[in-house]
Amino acid sequence: MRIAQVAPLWERVPPPGYGGIELVVGHLTDELVRRGHDVTLFASGDSQTLAQLESIAPRALRLDPSVKEPGVYDLMQLQRVCQRAQDFDLIHFHTGFTALPFADFAKTPIVHTIHGIFTADSRKIYQQHRDQNFISISDAQRETDLGLNYISTVYNGMAIEEYPFKAKPHNAPYLAFLGRLSPEKGPHHAIAIAKKTGWKLKMAGKIDRVDLEFYEQEIKPHLDGDQIEYLGETTHEQKVELLGNAAVTLFPITWREPFGLVMIESMCTGTPVLAMNLGSVPEVIAHGKTGFVCNNVDEMVEALPKALQLDRQTCRDYVVSRFSVNRMVDDYELAYQKAIAESMNRNGRVSSGQLVA
Amino acid sequence: MRIAQVAPLWERVPPPGYGGIELVVGHLTDELVRRGHDVTLFASGDSQTLAQLESIAPRALRLDPSVKEPGVYDLMQLQRVCQRAQDFDLIHFHTGFTALPFADFAKTPIVHTIHGIFTADSRKIYQQHRDQNFISISDAQRETDLGLNYISTVYNGMAIEEYPFKAKPHNAPYLAFLGRLSPEKGPHHAIAIAKKTGWKLKMAGKIDRVDLEFYEQEIKPHLDGDQIEYLGETTHEQKVELLGNAAVTLFPITWREPFGLVMIESMCTGTPVLAMNLGSVPEVIAHGKTGFVCNNVDEMVEALPKALQLDRQTCRDYVVSRFSVNRMVDDYELAYQKAIAESMNRNGRVSSGQLVA
Repeated sequence: MRIAQVAPLWERVPPPGYGGIELVVGHLTDELVRRGHDVTLFASGDSQTLAQLESIAPRALRLDPSVKEPGVYDLMQLQRVCQRAQDFDLIHFHTGFTALPFADFAKTPIVHTIHGIFTADSRKIYQQHRDQNFISISDAQRETDLGLNYISTVYNGMAIEEYPFKAKPHNAPYLAFLGRLSPEKGPHHAIAIAKKTGWKLKMAGKIDRVDLEFYEQEIKPHLDGDQIEYLGETTHEQKVELLGNAAVTLFPITWREPFGLVMIESMCTGTPVLAMNLGSVPEVIAHGKTGFVCNNVDEMVEALPKALQLDRQTCRDYVVSRFSVNRMVDDYELAYQKAIAESMNRNGRVSSGQLVA
Repeated sequence: MRIAQVAPLWERVPPPGYGGIELVVGHLTDELVRRGHDVTLFASGDSQTLAQLESIAPRALRLDPSVKEPGVYDLMQLQRVCQRAQDFDLIHFHTGFTALPFADFAKTPIVHTIHGIFTADSRKIYQQHRDQNFISISDAQRETDLGLNYISTVYNGMAIEEYPFKAKPHNAPYLAFLGRLSPEKGPHHAIAIAKKTGWKLKMAGKIDRVDLEFYEQEIKPHLDGDQIEYLGETTHEQKVELLGNAAVTLFPITWREPFGLVMIESMCTGTPVLAMNLGSVPEVIAHGKTGFVCNNVDEMVEALPKALQLDRQTCRDYVVSRFSVNRMVDDYELAYQKAIAESMNRNGRVSSGQLVA
């Protein structure tokens, strides 16, 4: 199958550090190539891929100080995709609402994976294009009142082999936090849990400009370089090290997380997860087996001793069976076939209508 | 002719206060209707127009606190224009670079008026679509290295009758400044000129969020409620009052102004203009007759006594002959005919090419 994957330009594929969407797009793209598909990846020029790379920006916009209006490049990339639409059997957009109006102009079957959440503004444009083909990354992510034409839920998959299993963490035990240092991800809750339990906490993740004030006020004052530590943005190796050697990973979110890649990354290394009961969390964690789904910070503090007793191999096996790249790509291939079949049916219907008229 | 006018959604048409683009779109649209054209105006739902109003947002985005992602609405409007493209003989975009990729999908002849300046980012997307039909609002606004297909320069026009001539200002004499309180418009220079000459200065215009720090540091400390006064955003009546009763209007810009509507508004009421020699300024002011084109603040201070001697009726007549709505709409009608003729030629060439092949 000739497939186009369209990634956001903000971060490269795969991302050097944090960047959930681009990581998933990278795994999906490379595995599709390994399975014999003819894949073109639309992404920033510094991306690394087994597919053919088509790029209108030499490097990730986030890292290019000359870029002030990223929207310009999003439009240029979408335009390029449309120009080449006839070269593909299917186009898979990962770029959010901006792709919606363009998708109307292409005759090629199209699917959109919605990686984020809906905002009060974006709801309106999604609703206007509700008949296009959408894929959710968890059931919890769907907002049913929008009436979107969801053709599948495909849980994100990860490269299991890149997250070696740690049967027993070798360092002094600590709690881990990984993710943007933003209110939604709850790093302030992680600090509260560490302080209430006396555990050491190691945190890593990027700080977006919009979150600088939050970081200065809620996080930075607690960084003592001893009990509470911030490691900055991590490489993949540092991430695996951080998660695999943790006793427990904290996922104390305050928003409806659409998926939460960090949870499976942690479980894959063997480390159980204490997570807040919001969004996709109950779909991703096997409560009482690979972690605990809690309703507030106090419950998380209370569950910590039980989490320490969980079997690390069980955490690992659970991810292998449910969240591998192979399973994700199986699911996406099915979704692509569904979108193509529906498109042929629709065109068939139009033709017969024309014959009757 | 069936014409679509596409305005930005940020401000309504016409704007209640400041808003150069929306003011020009309003005059152009209404005059085209008066001349018998069938005109549809795509703009915010609170716009007032003689044309048919087509709107995807109930009110100007700037005034709607629920709007966090204005880009969503820009895309929704462009999508609506494309859906209706076949209803028009010509589509006239005033919405900047976002319209460019959409214009490629429409078969209807299209013109873009570029109202603003090029940025390092937007240059790239304009260049990618350089063969579309562009209209500049001054010769100075063109950046020739981009190689854009400019089909005309059309100076902005204004409704002369809405700016009554003041043969003699009746109040205590003062200098006027009208425009965004941003570094580009030079309100800090206006204050410097007032302080150096001892003249009273009355300033009006909006303060954008991005300019708040500039306002707090460079403007607010000088507002003494006596010599230096800031009137906030003005209604049309207040604007006419402010300009018409001024001895001289200051236009001490620090950027390459693409047009500078305030200069003609002022001259129309009879008030000459002292302006900085940047961008369109020498095209808009008749040096030594309707104002003075200066190269720095000191030259403006020096020219002030000479500006006070200029004939107010000459200022008025100059605007009537060069910057009326009628003259602007004459020019746009010619540009539309040119775009339509070129489009027919192009399609004609394609057809004969096909016949030969």
